[in-house]
Amino acid sequence: MPLTPLELYRDKRHACLMFTDLIEEDGLAVQANQFLIVDNGTGAILDPGGTLAFNELFMGMTRHFPPHQLSYLLASHADPDIIASLDRWLTSTRATLVISRVWERFVPHFTKVGKTENRILAVPDAGGHLPLGQSELVLLPAHFMHSEGNFHFYDPLSRILFSGDLGVSMTSGPEARVPVTDLASHIPRMEGFHRRYMVSNKILRLWTRMARGLDIALIAPQHGAPIMGKRAINDFFDWLDGLACGIDLFDERAYQLPTERLQALRQSA
Amino acid sequence: MPLTPLELYRDKRHACLMFTDLIEEDGLAVQANQFLIVDNGTGAILDPGGTLAFNELFMGMTRHFPPHQLSYLLASHADPDIIASLDRWLTSTRATLVISRVWERFVPHFTKVGKTENRILAVPDAGGHLPLGQSELVLLPAHFMHSEGNFHFYDPLSRILFSGDLGVSMTSGPEARVPVTDLASHIPRMEGFHRRYMVSNKILRLWTRMARGLDIALIAPQHGAPIMGKRAINDFFDWLDGLACGIDLFDERAYQLPTERLQALRQSA
Repeated sequence: MPLTPLELYRDKRHACLMFTDLIEEDGLAVQANQFLIVDNGTGAILDPGGTLAFNELFMGMTRHFPPHQLSYLLASHADPDIIASLDRWLTSTRATLVISRVWERFVPHFTKVGKTENRILAVPDAGGHLPLGQSELVLLPAHFMHSEGNFHFYDPLSRILFSGDLGVSMTSGPEARVPVTDLASHIPRMEGFHRRYMVSNKILRLWTRMARGLDIALIAPQHGAPIMGKRAINDFFDWLDGLACGIDLFDERAYQLPTERLQALRQSA
Repeated sequence: MPLTPLELYRDKRHACLMFTDLIEEDGLAVQANQFLIVDNGTGAILDPGGTLAFNELFMGMTRHFPPHQLSYLLASHADPDIIASLDRWLTSTRATLVISRVWERFVPHFTKVGKTENRILAVPDAGGHLPLGQSELVLLPAHFMHSEGNFHFYDPLSRILFSGDLGVSMTSGPEARVPVTDLASHIPRMEGFHRRYMVSNKILRLWTRMARGLDIALIAPQHGAPIMGKRAINDFFDWLDGLACGIDLFDERAYQLPTERLQALRQSA
């Protein structure tokens, strides 16, 4: 049985819930968080995940409102752990998929023919404000972090920034429920991923420059534990500013005609 | 009825086939090519695509060998138009998925629980040589073009380079069957995509430096028409060397707190 979702925020009309353990820990699939924002009887699912998470997340949602009341599926980008369950969500709800225009014509490959017709809000690169119930969400540009067309989601009521693949750490579902308040001890769990999957330090710096202008209480990534409190969040921004990653670390040694035979790998896979 | 697949190469024991129109042209999903390499009664499917392409491609394959004889599903990266049909291929064949180690723990989100166990060959960043029947394929590093963990597939017998998202052009299925021999007139169909989806000119140059060392008769991308012949291929490399793209073109103007309201977009979506 999955754990109860973690309440990141709740007032009378608005709640933010985090699901951390909907995927069986079989060592094959990376742990992933899914989020549900409820506002005045409607809601949005953020980065709903793949086939593995669909059933439990759908059930979790119906405890708060009926399926036809779901307004949006918000996808930070188009990776399988973000939105491979798209076909089932489009079938089971009337929600609109909100995703970068960069992926508008690629996500229909997740679904059966015609399924996405009039169901996609293709977000322009500049992002924008999206109404949700009586509140709104801010779609914040995060292109190349890691995906070419990428958005984070900021909720002004809870002051939570849902940061997709930024700030992720490799951990288990139960551990992902414990917010990080001391960044230094958390860095070893974030470093490998950010160095390989974030595209360039130039982009990290452009992003932190923008993000420092927001009042953020908690950063909730799509894998691993949230980062909580002004001090840890500022430390996180400082760490990003100094991090070499992605193409910064790739030179001619990474682009050589290969010599190794892969047969041996097959046995160890 | 889909067209017969295009024969890019054939000798007595080895063939390379290109499927260009397995996806209904409904204007929602981008046109995509899938490839089948047959060698001595076995074979590999390259970038098999999404749900939309599965049935026809599977039928096309069984004209050459029975499903259990398929050796590999080769995925250049993990986007939905590349491999969203993974669950069905793993069910219907015994093939191994060959994909970058960067995506090894993300692709299980495409499938039901446990489905990928012992079915993934996670390719190290350096790539390698993969045996196929009596021949072999070369897995060529193409990281950040566009995906962080990305490979192209070179077939030494046919001298075809299967280049994934590199060299793609936006066109229809029937037009994708006509190889391009004059690059200049083809550039307008490639330019918008490459500027937005390729990550950086630095990477393009590192890659062309490596690729110029291969004897390539034809470049077969995953969308649009192949590029054929020494002259057009050299012109293509020269064009890439001079192309600013991705993060080269993104500066502080692209990372601003958004001001626009998105409600209006919903009607036009």
